[in-house]
Amino acid sequence: MANARKVGVLGGGQLGRMLIEAANRLNIQVNVLDVGHSPAKQISSHDGHIDGSFKDAQAVKQLAKRCDVVTVEIEHVDTEMLEEVAGDVIVEPSWKTLRLIKDKYAQKEYLKEHGVGVAESRDLQGKDDLEVALKDVGKEFGYPFMLKSKTEAYDGRGNFVVRNEDDVPKAKDVLGNRPLYAERWADFRLELAVMVVKSKDGVLTFPVVETVHEDSICKLTYAPPRNVSPEITKKAQELAKKAIGAFEGKGVFGVEMFLLKDDTLLINEIAPRPHNSGHYTIEACYISQYSAHLRAILDLDIPEEGLRLREPAIMLNILGGKTKDSHEQIAKAAIKIPRASVHLYGKGEARPGRKMGHITLTAPTLAQAENEIQPLIDLVDSMKGKPLGPKSEKVKEEPLVAVIMGSDSDLPVLKAGLQILENFAVPFTVRITSAHRTPDWLQEFSKKAAATSIKVIIGAAGGAAHLPGMCASWTTLPVIGLPVKATHLDGVDSLYSMTQMPRGEPVATVGINNSTNAALLAIRILGASDLVLRDRLQVWMKGNETEVLRKDQKLLDEGYEAYLTGMGK
Amino acid sequence: MANARKVGVLGGGQLGRMLIEAANRLNIQVNVLDVGHSPAKQISSHDGHIDGSFKDAQAVKQLAKRCDVVTVEIEHVDTEMLEEVAGDVIVEPSWKTLRLIKDKYAQKEYLKEHGVGVAESRDLQGKDDLEVALKDVGKEFGYPFMLKSKTEAYDGRGNFVVRNEDDVPKAKDVLGNRPLYAERWADFRLELAVMVVKSKDGVLTFPVVETVHEDSICKLTYAPPRNVSPEITKKAQELAKKAIGAFEGKGVFGVEMFLLKDDTLLINEIAPRPHNSGHYTIEACYISQYSAHLRAILDLDIPEEGLRLREPAIMLNILGGKTKDSHEQIAKAAIKIPRASVHLYGKGEARPGRKMGHITLTAPTLAQAENEIQPLIDLVDSMKGKPLGPKSEKVKEEPLVAVIMGSDSDLPVLKAGLQILENFAVPFTVRITSAHRTPDWLQEFSKKAAATSIKVIIGAAGGAAHLPGMCASWTTLPVIGLPVKATHLDGVDSLYSMTQMPRGEPVATVGINNSTNAALLAIRILGASDLVLRDRLQVWMKGNETEVLRKDQKLLDEGYEAYLTGMGK
Repeated sequence: MANARKVGVLGGGQLGRMLIEAANRLNIQVNVLDVGHSPAKQISSHDGHIDGSFKDAQAVKQLAKRCDVVTVEIEHVDTEMLEEVAGDVIVEPSWKTLRLIKDKYAQKEYLKEHGVGVAESRDLQGKDDLEVALKDVGKEFGYPFMLKSKTEAYDGRGNFVVRNEDDVPKAKDVLGNRPLYAERWADFRLELAVMVVKSKDGVLTFPVVETVHEDSICKLTYAPPRNVSPEITKKAQELAKKAIGAFEGKGVFGVEMFLLKDDTLLINEIAPRPHNSGHYTIEACYISQYSAHLRAILDLDIPEEGLRLREPAIMLNILGGKTKDSHEQIAKAAIKIPRASVHLYGKGEARPGRKMGHITLTAPTLAQAENEIQPLIDLVDSMKGKPLGPKSEKVKEEPLVAVIMGSDSDLPVLKAGLQILENFAVPFTVRITSAHRTPDWLQEFSKKAAATSIKVIIGAAGGAAHLPGMCASWTTLPVIGLPVKATHLDGVDSLYSMTQMPRGEPVATVGINNSTNAALLAIRILGASDLVLRDRLQVWMKGNETEVLRKDQKLLDEGYEAYLTGMGK
Repeated sequence: MANARKVGVLGGGQLGRMLIEAANRLNIQVNVLDVGHSPAKQISSHDGHIDGSFKDAQAVKQLAKRCDVVTVEIEHVDTEMLEEVAGDVIVEPSWKTLRLIKDKYAQKEYLKEHGVGVAESRDLQGKDDLEVALKDVGKEFGYPFMLKSKTEAYDGRGNFVVRNEDDVPKAKDVLGNRPLYAERWADFRLELAVMVVKSKDGVLTFPVVETVHEDSICKLTYAPPRNVSPEITKKAQELAKKAIGAFEGKGVFGVEMFLLKDDTLLINEIAPRPHNSGHYTIEACYISQYSAHLRAILDLDIPEEGLRLREPAIMLNILGGKTKDSHEQIAKAAIKIPRASVHLYGKGEARPGRKMGHITLTAPTLAQAENEIQPLIDLVDSMKGKPLGPKSEKVKEEPLVAVIMGSDSDLPVLKAGLQILENFAVPFTVRITSAHRTPDWLQEFSKKAAATSIKVIIGAAGGAAHLPGMCASWTTLPVIGLPVKATHLDGVDSLYSMTQMPRGEPVATVGINNSTNAALLAIRILGASDLVLRDRLQVWMKGNETEVLRKDQKLLDEGYEAYLTGMGK
């Protein structure tokens, strides 16, 4: 948008580069302050860039003169100069926010003041005897605890894990000359991150991702997170909103958090800019974090639905490995994978641990994405010189079908159906949930089912056979009823009990003891939206047709008497 | 990929620009030959570009010296010079192909020789008396027919529709000084286009799109095409493959074709490069046409599955309108739409009809995409100064549920269920398909259903009630059986006929005459993959719960006798 204002950005690394990729599509000029031919400048040819350091006050001033809005791709900038120029140019997010966030200790104190949960910490700056102070922290927090530099800390640099009292002298050696604080160890189950957008229209969030770190550097992100309930991802989004709502200014913010073993969420760290954990948005959301950042700082519209997930996605960082071209080798392997999108950052030769690019793989299911990206994770590990462990196991698909029965006496009847599900490679789970002996368990199971990977339930029962009907009353999922022939009434009792449900809660009933058809109906239901599965069913039905036609021909060829003899009759 | 070879491209317009966007992500250097600061050069900062014309032989030679592979974003180039440099540098696609294709008459003669269907044409080059020759064509082909320039024809320039004999002098006036041919009018139902990739690994195709032209310029593309059967899209892909297979060289090719009213396909035109009808691939496929072109000419891998459609997509061109900033206004409106991706080309001020950018909107269904993009189409039309017609009607969603019955006597029973589908805003179709009176029609309907938008079938029948079971035998879709109570046996006859299907073809049977439950089961089946619909069902079930609890309270408050009186009993 040529009419739009010019943007200046402090820093021209990969985040600036992807910001410019988004800006190019909107005809927005972005002037970069960084060294010559930095990644961002490579994809932007005009005379508005400035060669220099984003820490140099005079260069910042010069940039401000050429722009209408100044923003950052890194928070370790000269906020004093930003404060000075803020009268003449818009700075987003606010220099106050940048100053607060670039000091991690101040950032957390500020969050605490605003009622946001963070790990407990102790200020160590200016302590006369750091070793004594560290031992005091060890007594209070227990070991291990984290020793952290308040500033200039990223990708693990500036952090030290104090494992026991013997580590104290080494900790002092490594970080003693920096402004420090100590943090209680967060005993987390996993790490989550949320990109938050603050704009003229309020505070919005992107989906929640799970982040996996290795050597304190982000290695992978999973959207959605694995084994995290919708309730928790909602809580994570609310927490991220609350945290970012406390700061001044517009733009996107990365919020990293811990999910503790008791399901509590604690903020770990905030970044006032696009973030590694939001790379996946380029392919996986309708609006990327980069487009959102530009729109936010330029007061352009950000329709909330555009931040939704189009498809599950996994992002894998391409870090420099043992050789100078390790990233090229990974990229070459990645382009062989159909659903992988490769982003290289134009950084030249690799150095170990340097962020050289990333890969985003999107797929209809997260398990599919996990299986498809695994060879690349293995390659990345081998490039790092990591000895490869035992061949990674195929990720088990989460069950799509739940088969529940009133009693294990129904299992023999179910066997044929379970084999059909296996033959069609449909992942399923089998449970015993008696409507009358375990009514609470059936209720709990039925109520939770829709929030899991399950899409269809098969309920087998005999006699009064209330199981599928009760299940249907507690879920919105389609429930298939399989009437099992019990001692009396030939199964008609169960058949009526299932079909004759009141208006409101249908049970899709199949023939008595016909678990094959129950399974095939589940497959048809899944196939309504899964064309691959539907194709598989088509082939199977064709096979049955051929088999019957073969028999017909045989009967014609042999005559019915020989045929009967062949059948042993 | 820094190790990869350098690419040179003749032309630096929007196609070159999007090619470079893809190249930037792979660290591939692309040297552009075009005027200074052309769209492509704006997003690529290095010293390998050449300022000049792609028609200038010396400039082409200079470019060739700086590259390993030379390609084009436009076919109107100097193929003599490309032939000359082809010894020293790889030219993709081959200069022979470019020479053939840039002459549209030669292109079609060549296709004809290779057995590919094209519209019938007559060579008019060198005719002494053009008017006489045109009248002869009119006698042979009938009116209207197309008069076309063999070369330098694009976006409608170089084409003239000869409507009747009176048009002949004007046709001569407009195009008389160009090399001409005449073409029989193609009475097409709609236009289709397919992007084809020719690479080291063979010939692959992207999905088929429907293209809509206005004033001979591409206005819209729809992926997948509207109202075109899978059989025809498959045929279109095969035809496109056959056509491109006939030419030498690697890269992507755009194949435009007519779908005639009798479902015949005729090739209209071929472009030896990325094409307007393939823009949608950036968002809608895993691999874009631009990435595919780079990979093809550089012998990098192109996994076929990556060319699949992630989601239905509509592309709308942003053409220059009446004002210089019309494209900016359209872009500003587009970013308000959540699923719209905007691409502006950095072309400065708009001229009427100039391609300034495009918008791609992807959505879970094409009908949703159509409804969401309609305001932008209206805006584009008003920018062109076109008086707006009556407010465009909301595109009717294609049916997701088919309700079939054996006889119209079943309709009263179905009414409650159809109202449920309406209340849940589930698009459906109702048909009469008697198993015994119209067995062929039931067969035809059932066999075709899976290839349409239909995902679930409800079959209502009484008595022998073979309808849903026969339907299930001819389709892979889930079929719900609704037993209708007939004169005898209270509906138990139909119930048994539906539940007791043989192993292989299940019918999901609900209660006798309970069309409400048949509809709710269809909604649950759709809800297995449609979370919005599932939420709607949840709200509806909650409403029922509240209503029963209200009655319970009333009964408690009033006592059962007053309650009965209130019920009129």
